Amino acid sequence: MEEGLIAGRWMLRMAWEGAGYVGWQRQPDGPSIQSVLEAAVGKLCGTEAVAVRATGRTDAGVHAREQVVAVDLPVARSRAQVRDGLNHFLPHDIVCLDAQPAPPDFVPRRWVRHKRYRYRILSRPSPCPFRHGRVWHLRQPLDRVAMSLGAAALVGRHDFSSFRARGCSAINPVRTLGGAAVREEGDELVLDFVGHGFLRHQVRIMTGTLVEVGEGRRPAASIASVLAARTRSAAGRTAPAHGLWLDEVRMGDGPHRPGGP
Amino acid sequence: MEEGLIAGRWMLRMAWEGAGYVGWQRQPDGPSIQSVLEAAVGKLCGTEAVAVRATGRTDAGVHAREQVVAVDLPVARSRAQVRDGLNHFLPHDIVCLDAQPAPPDFVPRRWVRHKRYRYRILSRPSPCPFRHGRVWHLRQPLDRVAMSLGAAALVGRHDFSSFRARGCSAINPVRTLGGAAVREEGDELVLDFVGHGFLRHQVRIMTGTLVEVGEGRRPAASIASVLAARTRSAAGRTAPAHGLWLDEVRMGDGPHRPGGP
Repeated sequence: MEEGLIAGRWMLRMAWEGAGYVGWQRQPDGPSIQSVLEAAVGKLCGTEAVAVRATGRTDAGVHAREQVVAVDLPVARSRAQVRDGLNHFLPHDIVCLDAQPAPPDFVPRRWVRHKRYRYRILSRPSPCPFRHGRVWHLRQPLDRVAMSLGAAALVGRHDFSSFRARGCSAINPVRTLGGAAVREEGDELVLDFVGHGFLRHQVRIMTGTLVEVGEGRRPAASIASVLAARTRSAAGRTAPAHGLWLDEVRMGDGPHRPGGP
Repeated sequence: MEEGLIAGRWMLRMAWEGAGYVGWQRQPDGPSIQSVLEAAVGKLCGTEAVAVRATGRTDAGVHAREQVVAVDLPVARSRAQVRDGLNHFLPHDIVCLDAQPAPPDFVPRRWVRHKRYRYRILSRPSPCPFRHGRVWHLRQPLDRVAMSLGAAALVGRHDFSSFRARGCSAINPVRTLGGAAVREEGDELVLDFVGHGFLRHQVRIMTGTLVEVGEGRRPAASIASVLAARTRSAAGRTAPAHGLWLDEVRMGDGPHRPGGP
């Protein structure tokens, strides 16, 4: 085999603009990131579509600044060939940032250590033509300090039943939120949530509820009672998908916990 | 008249994503920023389209982070009504950032002190899904120091005939380039050009020629001879419109020079 040409399991770092897609996972009602990427890998290898696996799903319309994906290449390629070849076959809103060979037992969902989701709110009177569909535009000022206090109450290991979509299929509603921060970045208010795994719409419902705190429509101290209520109706609205970003995926060098969530 | 409701001349600060437009000026072959804004002002005032004037034209596909525009409102409105009303009637890729009453003799083209154009180059192997159509993507590394040296040779008052489009209608090809800088910002190489006025495609031809310096295809020292040649064929290619941004418009508090360039 020529030096640097490798077949077998690879790790891809991907990024995408979610607006045009039904989310990561294959769906009958529109193109998914997964299906478009599988077709591109097929074209790269001159084969049928090749299956890919990510660290988890993302919802329709959600953006990824970074997602980690595994794929088994049936033919040998170099790192630059995989990256540039995929980008040649992918549409402009899905990009392979980097590609590298991975161990045969590499499974992104098991090896992931934590993910950081970022919710971006444009907090000013006028919208922004360059961030349309990438931030949630709220014209009225928000009380960042109150939102920070509310966010702090969510950190830790909790039953997040109040903060999951009614259709969420997870058996266990307990998750550990490793961190939650609200900060100003220029004219944006950004909410960062770090954890190993999240329930369906969890980040968007946490954000929507914290925005109601920021608007003065519920006190920061109420967030603990929302958690304790363990029912969706106790929390606030679901923030729109287009402000949500999978921002960072931190991988370990082996499985996290066998079978763990 | 109710407090804060003002008719007459107003100054608008506008921003737009240029991809969908034929440029600032009305054209027969597609929507222009000017015509779309004039229609929105008309809707705001419940009248026909109302004429607007900017500090100058921008080409098809060029973006504006900031442009200053004058308009005469036939009906009285508050600042928030003008800004929010225009944004209500404008498409999402054209935004009114701010609106304020202006003196009756305010003419943006005469009052402008300088403009800064920024050319953004994404300099890395992979494209970026979030900056598609907003940066020029060049995969090969560029020699920033050589480009800076070349850019410095352009600063000052020169006959820029080598750096203007063949169809440029300006009678006088002499312009003063107040500054030219090449710097790295993250994974981008940005070229900033400051001046009072520019010839047609001047910034894009200066950029395209400096990129050839950065690629090692022409020496930095050659830029002075390109200037001296005073013919378009001496310069390099025209960089694509989609990487060009009107980045800042600095206004004075009165006319710059009566009848000036």
